[in-house]
Amino acid sequence: MGTAGKVIKCKAAVLWGMNQPFSIEEIEVAPPKAKEVRVKVLATGICRTDDHVIKGAMVSKFPVILGHEAVGVVESVGEGVTTVRPGDKVIPLFLPQCRECNACCNPEGNLCIRSDLTGRGVLADGTTRFMCKGKPVQHFMNTSTFTEYTVLDESSVAKIDGAAAPEKACLIGCGFSTGYGAAVKTAKVTPGSTCVVFGLGGVGLSVIMGCKAAGASRIIGIDINKDKFQKALAVGATECINPKDFTKPISEVLSDMTGNTVQYTFEVIGRLETMVDALSSCHMNYGTSVVVGAPPSAKTLTYDPMLLFTGRTWKGCVFGGWKSRDDVPKLVTELLEEKFDLDQLITHVLPFESIKEGFELLYSGQSIRTVLTF
Amino acid sequence: MGTAGKVIKCKAAVLWGMNQPFSIEEIEVAPPKAKEVRVKVLATGICRTDDHVIKGAMVSKFPVILGHEAVGVVESVGEGVTTVRPGDKVIPLFLPQCRECNACCNPEGNLCIRSDLTGRGVLADGTTRFMCKGKPVQHFMNTSTFTEYTVLDESSVAKIDGAAAPEKACLIGCGFSTGYGAAVKTAKVTPGSTCVVFGLGGVGLSVIMGCKAAGASRIIGIDINKDKFQKALAVGATECINPKDFTKPISEVLSDMTGNTVQYTFEVIGRLETMVDALSSCHMNYGTSVVVGAPPSAKTLTYDPMLLFTGRTWKGCVFGGWKSRDDVPKLVTELLEEKFDLDQLITHVLPFESIKEGFELLYSGQSIRTVLTF
Repeated sequence: MGTAGKVIKCKAAVLWGMNQPFSIEEIEVAPPKAKEVRVKVLATGICRTDDHVIKGAMVSKFPVILGHEAVGVVESVGEGVTTVRPGDKVIPLFLPQCRECNACCNPEGNLCIRSDLTGRGVLADGTTRFMCKGKPVQHFMNTSTFTEYTVLDESSVAKIDGAAAPEKACLIGCGFSTGYGAAVKTAKVTPGSTCVVFGLGGVGLSVIMGCKAAGASRIIGIDINKDKFQKALAVGATECINPKDFTKPISEVLSDMTGNTVQYTFEVIGRLETMVDALSSCHMNYGTSVVVGAPPSAKTLTYDPMLLFTGRTWKGCVFGGWKSRDDVPKLVTELLEEKFDLDQLITHVLPFESIKEGFELLYSGQSIRTVLTF
Repeated sequence: MGTAGKVIKCKAAVLWGMNQPFSIEEIEVAPPKAKEVRVKVLATGICRTDDHVIKGAMVSKFPVILGHEAVGVVESVGEGVTTVRPGDKVIPLFLPQCRECNACCNPEGNLCIRSDLTGRGVLADGTTRFMCKGKPVQHFMNTSTFTEYTVLDESSVAKIDGAAAPEKACLIGCGFSTGYGAAVKTAKVTPGSTCVVFGLGGVGLSVIMGCKAAGASRIIGIDINKDKFQKALAVGATECINPKDFTKPISEVLSDMTGNTVQYTFEVIGRLETMVDALSSCHMNYGTSVVVGAPPSAKTLTYDPMLLFTGRTWKGCVFGGWKSRDDVPKLVTELLEEKFDLDQLITHVLPFESIKEGFELLYSGQSIRTVLTF
C-alpha cells in the first residue's frame, strides 16, 4: 500500500459548471483525515440524479465530481476508522448511517443527519479532498464516484462481500435499492397481494422485483411507453397496461381489472398527478401508496382528503427506507444468493472514459442502467 | 319472551326533518327478519355525527331514528342468526363486519361493504322495521339507537360481556374506539415515543388514552381552548399547548419542544389546515400522522409532497381501524380490566326523554359525552 498517507494523482470526470460537458481531468486526491476512508472506485452507475446537477434541478457548487452509485475497494483509512480496512470491498453510501443521530437511532428512521442532499459539497470538516488545476473540487452527496479515487466519511461506507461483481453490485448503492426497498421495506408488500407500479424505468423495475420477492401474486406495470412492457414482464410484472388505451380514470380501470383488490401502489415517476392517481388506485380502506419518484421542487399537490380518511396509507421513502450501512451488505448477500437478478437492469457497460456516451444513452432512453468500469 | 315474533310498540326520538327538534313518539318496531336481531336499548351516547344529520352535513331521508353509540340486550332473533341469542348484552355496530366482503377478508381492512355511511336508511332487504303514525321511519347507519327497541343486521351486532355497565360501555360503539384505535391499532404507537394530539374533544381524549395505553412517554395535547387542558392532562397528556400562544408555526414549536422527535401526530378536528400542520409536525423521516377528524365534504387539500417524500406516513382510519365484531368485545373486556377509564369521558347521564337537553349540552360545549339511559 505504497499510496497510503500520500496524495494520489488520478483521472476523474470533472463538471466545471451547469450544462457543461464532463471533462476527464487529472486530479489530486488527498489522504483520508480522521474517520475517513479513501476508496479506489471499480464500477459506477449513471443515475438520473447525477443529471439533475448538470441541468440545475439539484443545487451544487462547481467544479464538482458527480457519481454516487458504485463499488470500490478501500485504499487506505484515516485515524480512528474501525469498520473497514484497506482491501475491503465497499459500496459508497449517498445516505450515510452514523448510528448516533435522531433518525439513525429510531427503528423506522434512515435519513441520517450526515446526509448531504442539499449541495453542501464538502466532507464533515467542511473541506474537500479533491484538487484540479490548483482549484478545490466539490464532493457530491458524500460519494463522488466519477473518479478513480474518492474519499468518504466512514459513515458513508458499507463493507460488502468480496465475491460481489462490482459492475452489478454498484446498483445496490442507489437505483435498485430505492425501488426494491420501497416494496419490501417501506410498503412491506404481503404474499398474495396485488401491486401496481406507475413508471417502468430502472427504479420502477426494481419495485417490481421487490413486489415479486415479497410474494405478490399480481403485479401490474403502468407506462405510457409500451416499449417498456417487455422488460417489466421479464422482471416480474404479471401484466402491463398503458393508461392512454383507456378512457376511464386509471383507478377505475385497475379496480375493474382486479375486483377492487389493489393493496399496494407505487409512483415511480415524480409527477404530482400520477401521485394522486396512485393513491386513488389502491383500495380505499386497506390500500397503501408509496411515493418513490421525487416530486418537482417547490410545487404543491392538491387532492381530496376523503381518499385518506377512509383508511388509505400514503407514504414516502428515501433509499427505499433502508438503513444503509446495516442493510446494503445484506442486499449484496441476497444478490450473491440470486434472490434477484441485476443483469436485467444493466443494459450497457462502458469504460469510464466513455462517460459522455453513457449520459447520451440516458438522454435517449435507450439504456435502463449504464455502468462505467475502471 | 312474550314479544318475540310480534310488533313492539315503544318510545323513540323521531327526527321528522332537517333542523327540526326531536319528537318523542310511539313507534312500531317489526320483528327481526332472517339474519336480523331485535335489541332493547339500555343506554346510548350522543355523538357529533348524529348532529350532522340534523344540520344536513350528512345525507339522510326523513323521518329517521338517529343514534349509533349504544349498549342493548337482545330481545329476539330472526331465522338463521347464530352469533347472539335473546338475553345477550350487545353493542350495535355502525361499521358492520360481515366477514365475507373484500374489506372484511383483508387483514388490514375494516370498511365492510354492508356499512351504511351514505344515508341508504334501510336494512339489507331494502326495507325499514320502524313505523310511526302510519309512515315508515328510516334507519341510520344500521344502528338507530334513540329508541327503546331497534332492529339490526346480525353483522352489526357484537356480543359483549354481560358485566359491562351499559352507560359506560356504549362509548365503545363509536367515540372512544375511534380515538383509542387511531393510536393503538392504526398508528401502532410504540413504547417510549412522543405523540401529539390536535383537538381535545372526546375523540381526541380517547386518542390520548390510546397513546398512554401504548406506552408513549410524552403526549402533547393541542387546542385553542385552554379549558380543555385539565381533562386532557387527567387522561394522560403530559403537557398541553395553545397554538395561539406562539408566533412560530406549530410544527417548529413542537420540534423545539421535543428535540425533533415527534413520531406520531393525530388530527382530531377535521380541519384541512390542521391536517397539514399535523403532517408537518411529525418527524420528516420516521413520523406518522393519522387523520381522525372527518374532512369537510367536497373540499380539496393542498400540501407540499416533499413532506411525504422524505419518509413520513400519512393515513386515515374509520372506527379507529378496528374490525368491529372481532374487536369490540375485546375492548369491553379491557374496560372491565380497567385498562382505560371511560368515566373521564362521560360528563352527563340523562334519562332518554331528555334527549333535547343532551343535544343542548353538545352545542354549548359543556359536555364531553352525554349518555341517555332508558
